[in-house]
Amino acid sequence: MYSFKNDYAEGAHPNILQKLIETNLIQQNGYGEDEYSIQAKELLRSKLLNPKASIFFLSGGTQSNLIVISSLLRGHEAVISAQTGHIFANETGAIEATGHRVITVDTADGKLSPDSITTVLNGYTLRPHVVKPRIVYISNSTEIGTIYQKEELEELYTFCQQHNLLLYMDGARLGHALTAANNDLTLADIASHTDVFYIGGTKNGALLGEAVVFNKPPLADDFDYVLKQKGALLAKGRLLGIQFLELFTDDLYFKLAKHANSMAQKIASAFSKRRFSFLTESTTNQIFPILPLAVIEKFSKRYDFYVWKNIDDNNSAIRIITSWATPEDIVEEFIKEIDGL
Amino acid sequence: MYSFKNDYAEGAHPNILQKLIETNLIQQNGYGEDEYSIQAKELLRSKLLNPKASIFFLSGGTQSNLIVISSLLRGHEAVISAQTGHIFANETGAIEATGHRVITVDTADGKLSPDSITTVLNGYTLRPHVVKPRIVYISNSTEIGTIYQKEELEELYTFCQQHNLLLYMDGARLGHALTAANNDLTLADIASHTDVFYIGGTKNGALLGEAVVFNKPPLADDFDYVLKQKGALLAKGRLLGIQFLELFTDDLYFKLAKHANSMAQKIASAFSKRRFSFLTESTTNQIFPILPLAVIEKFSKRYDFYVWKNIDDNNSAIRIITSWATPEDIVEEFIKEIDGL
Amino acid sequence: MYSFKNDYAEGAHPNILQKLIETNLIQQNGYGEDEYSIQAKELLRSKLLNPKASIFFLSGGTQSNLIVISSLLRGHEAVISAQTGHIFANETGAIEATGHRVITVDTADGKLSPDSITTVLNGYTLRPHVVKPRIVYISNSTEIGTIYQKEELEELYTFCQQHNLLLYMDGARLGHALTAANNDLTLADIASHTDVFYIGGTKNGALLGEAVVFNKPPLADDFDYVLKQKGALLAKGRLLGIQFLELFTDDLYFKLAKHANSMAQKIASAFSKRRFSFLTESTTNQIFPILPLAVIEKFSKRYDFYVWKNIDDNNSAIRIITSWATPEDIVEEFIKEIDGL
Amino acid sequence: MYSFKNDYAEGAHPNILQKLIETNLIQQNGYGEDEYSIQAKELLRSKLLNPKASIFFLSGGTQSNLIVISSLLRGHEAVISAQTGHIFANETGAIEATGHRVITVDTADGKLSPDSITTVLNGYTLRPHVVKPRIVYISNSTEIGTIYQKEELEELYTFCQQHNLLLYMDGARLGHALTAANNDLTLADIASHTDVFYIGGTKNGALLGEAVVFNKPPLADDFDYVLKQKGALLAKGRLLGIQFLELFTDDLYFKLAKHANSMAQKIASAFSKRRFSFLTESTTNQIFPILPLAVIEKFSKRYDFYVWKNIDDNNSAIRIITSWATPEDIVEEFIKEIDGL
Repeated sequence: MYSFKNDYAEGAHPNILQKLIETNLIQQNGYGEDEYSIQAKELLRSKLLNPKASIFFLSGGTQSNLIVISSLLRGHEAVISAQTGHIFANETGAIEATGHRVITVDTADGKLSPDSITTVLNGYTLRPHVVKPRIVYISNSTEIGTIYQKEELEELYTFCQQHNLLLYMDGARLGHALTAANNDLTLADIASHTDVFYIGGTKNGALLGEAVVFNKPPLADDFDYVLKQKGALLAKGRLLGIQFLELFTDDLYFKLAKHANSMAQKIASAFSKRRFSFLTESTTNQIFPILPLAVIEKFSKRYDFYVWKNIDDNNSAIRIITSWATPEDIVEEFIKEIDGL
Repeated sequence: MYSFKNDYAEGAHPNILQKLIETNLIQQNGYGEDEYSIQAKELLRSKLLNPKASIFFLSGGTQSNLIVISSLLRGHEAVISAQTGHIFANETGAIEATGHRVITVDTADGKLSPDSITTVLNGYTLRPHVVKPRIVYISNSTEIGTIYQKEELEELYTFCQQHNLLLYMDGARLGHALTAANNDLTLADIASHTDVFYIGGTKNGALLGEAVVFNKPPLADDFDYVLKQKGALLAKGRLLGIQFLELFTDDLYFKLAKHANSMAQKIASAFSKRRFSFLTESTTNQIFPILPLAVIEKFSKRYDFYVWKNIDDNNSAIRIITSWATPEDIVEEFIKEIDGL
Repeated sequence: MYSFKNDYAEGAHPNILQKLIETNLIQQNGYGEDEYSIQAKELLRSKLLNPKASIFFLSGGTQSNLIVISSLLRGHEAVISAQTGHIFANETGAIEATGHRVITVDTADGKLSPDSITTVLNGYTLRPHVVKPRIVYISNSTEIGTIYQKEELEELYTFCQQHNLLLYMDGARLGHALTAANNDLTLADIASHTDVFYIGGTKNGALLGEAVVFNKPPLADDFDYVLKQKGALLAKGRLLGIQFLELFTDDLYFKLAKHANSMAQKIASAFSKRRFSFLTESTTNQIFPILPLAVIEKFSKRYDFYVWKNIDDNNSAIRIITSWATPEDIVEEFIKEIDGL
Repeated sequence: MYSFKNDYAEGAHPNILQKLIETNLIQQNGYGEDEYSIQAKELLRSKLLNPKASIFFLSGGTQSNLIVISSLLRGHEAVISAQTGHIFANETGAIEATGHRVITVDTADGKLSPDSITTVLNGYTLRPHVVKPRIVYISNSTEIGTIYQKEELEELYTFCQQHNLLLYMDGARLGHALTAANNDLTLADIASHTDVFYIGGTKNGALLGEAVVFNKPPLADDFDYVLKQKGALLAKGRLLGIQFLELFTDDLYFKLAKHANSMAQKIASAFSKRRFSFLTESTTNQIFPILPLAVIEKFSKRYDFYVWKNIDDNNSAIRIITSWATPEDIVEEFIKEIDGL
């Protein structure tokens, strides 16, 4: 039995564990003031080509989203998200729990555009009886595996700046986006075309950890207080610093993501060859083939995965996710099964 | 230079790192449904002598306190704490940020008693113009190193039950309390004389992690939702489960705490021998000797520690904390310096 | 120029002002403990046929909705509303500001049914990654003028009870609903087929004031604390008590609402006679005729009203609202203009 | 039986009721856009000598305090108050319910000074483990009847500006402060020596209503959204506008307060003549004479009042409050009883 259910089924990349052992007994300051965190931030800033970026290490995606968004919004302001956005679909109302509405947009591809945001803005004009849209939340790659092209991101950011909106990117799977075959964005592009974003570690080789990047330092004013108040400041911040230091040494982060993408796309090709269609056009590490129920049942005996959506009486879309840890031989075996259908 | 500033300056006990490596590539369910978490909870329940206890693994003390307390309180209810209590003194208003007043009591020893709580209750009677006290928050060991005796805890819990108050114990340093020379409480006593408490891992050998224990399961209803909503549910919950599994195998947790206590008490004896007095009567791993400023300056060249409180123009109390990782030889050297004063 | 923009353009029914003057200098207890409030609650309980109902007087609809809903929900719970529901469309995210998601349902008539709620429940099953639906919010009459029939309300309440959902009715225009020509519900029916509801005063003859009714007293536990904490407990509660006392003496409340309905329906008939259609099938005091833009422009010279929705390039729906204070002669004049089109 | 328990036992000054009747059927815009509110704000701005002040009418003191304070603070910021401050002592934790700590200062006279605030600031330096003090909350007159002198307010405001603190004055009894015999402040002084304050109507002749004044308009940015979201925007805002218009026509507001003060001080003189002492040195409309229990019992047969504080086994302080509506003949009778002791 092998699980394609998610990309956090294993522990951490061995380099990380090795480094934890090497540094284990070296005394460090607590609360993120350790030398590894300081080094990791320096390293990230150099990759972002933004020496002034304010960077903080948090423990998970929901935590990052709720803390960043609530720290940027005043009470009557709201965040706009695709209906498939993680903050709306999978985080137990964490944003609303901090007091803010998530305004949703129905999309085919999980992405937001100036057009769809314009529609939202037009629906929220009856001041003061409506909330004030203030943040645009996007994910790259999205929750359904798609990615933003450079031109799309540029247009979106320009639009946001023209409309007094902040652009925040959820990068839980940013590595997978930036190493997709059709990607034309760099980490530095992300840094210069969003206000805030985070680089996801948990789903790409870390035990836990997300690096929240404020591209414009004033947005991060007093963020240290916020982190502590929300219970997000680890006493042993070294645990997060060490991981990002390892992940961004020799581009390990991108190598891991590329492997994950490659495994998923191999599987996708096998399905395509057999003329199965897909729910979404993913070029990253999660794919959503639409399969007959009998095939799904057959596969479910040897593989774990989510049945994502019922398409009709005979077919459903399933979700297959691969990760940095997915072994190539298991993928080959799975492909043989697909070929043999 | 050696740091006695806190008990989280090093990484984790080697057993934990070893276990992380051994289990690293075994696929597990996410979000705390992994087999290590399940085993660790079973193990803890057996040590607590409470097979029905509801247990959850969180990432830190502030996070545990704010989530537990806010999940137990209705909007108009409040928590009572010693003025030295961590939730009042060191957590950036995390409880108030969830909407609740922390009512403080001035104490000499950092502990609450039926008497001091009675005074609070008498001050909060003008319904509905005042908040309604509902939780009593205590720490064991306290933030100033003292511990609760069994009789004290029994009286306190009886009082709470008679007055419709919930008793919640912050166990960030519970190991140190339960292995102090003058302790007469067991883990099972704690479980039967509080409503909720947590067993601190971060300050006693873990990379991060606190085990929140609801002794009465109905108090934990829907707590899984709460954890997720507050960003406290790690995708790789295995990281927490593995640590508690190791810490409670062969009583490692208590051995580590006992070592820390023993190191601090050795140092305390050295100070006592030289007739220095202490700010508090600590029997655990943090001590607060009162020293002449010249002595403090001398020590500060080789050791890191906090100057805790100015006593008079010539003397201050400092805080010395030891941990599971404090090497005995460093303590011996420090004692020699004390002896040589 | 006469305004049909809303039903709160005038002050209060003269009986209310008269009573304020008569009682003005009689000393009373503050904070809702005055004799008028006590009498008004008694009177309401007798009309509700529920001697145990817990009743509280608040100052407005948004205030009532946010305080009632937030006092009934735990942090991770949510409220279901029609997309046109006042809490979603017109209250500046007041519910989200208390920490809870408003889950919306797209409806044609502004009403919720077991079917539409079932769809919501099916979309919120992935515990603990989603919020937990707990309250069903309905308005009667709805924001678009429609009303619930007795059979509909019975079915809805039975469904809610079967699914552990609380049913809460926003009665900002409850008088208008209960005096509509096609209504078959009584005030006592509302009391026995909802968990909580409120009787709107502001839009039916009061200066301000809504009577929140908890049909099951345990739901109102500690609600006095909640009111005070949210700034909703008026020092001179007599102002609210006196108004409800007057409104429910000799059924003034229903007479006023009936007048408002009758004025709106007269106008509606005039439009119908001229073969104009309507956006919604309202039988209460707000109607939404669809008119050519030229007609709208003509009317707007003598009357104030909202253009509600653009229908096509040549037609829009407008909203005409009448109230207890709408003079019959003005309505007659308006009808003449309609007839003369 | 006559009540000296509070200053909100009666309705409104007759001028107000008269104006409500006169204007009753004149149609007005809702939500504070009525012409009376606009006129009242103009009138107030002229009295404040600040043509740019942003003014909003709210319904009560707790509501004003919680909405103003929470709209000015970011999540990790706190407000400093005297321990006797209304926000700490009498508002059911309303400030904490919006997420902010109220840091208290023990005072003899209910007033804050640069010295006492300095002590607070020194106790909140351990960033980011503590909240960040940001607002200084004072009441004038205070909850125990004392007032601020011009020099005190000037010093306090200068101190606040030097320390990046906002100064907010609760003026629930501002009229009583500004008409006290020992007062040397004007309304314009208040406007130029605070950042925000409110002019209390409820306790000085209105049915309800407080005028919140932002002396620096940027502090009021988007406050209209905040009001609506918190349920504080009355549909019939005319009710508040009309009252402030009447209260500030011909200085009625100050005449009413002066009467209240005069009644209380007459009673105070009678107690002084009989050599009774007082708990506080009040020059306004609430006095706290210390009386033998037998005297208290005797008075309590004909008068209602609060027993405020037990002084010793034989004596307690009581609170006597007078208002704009307190009849002089009742005061004379009471004085006769005092004289006859």
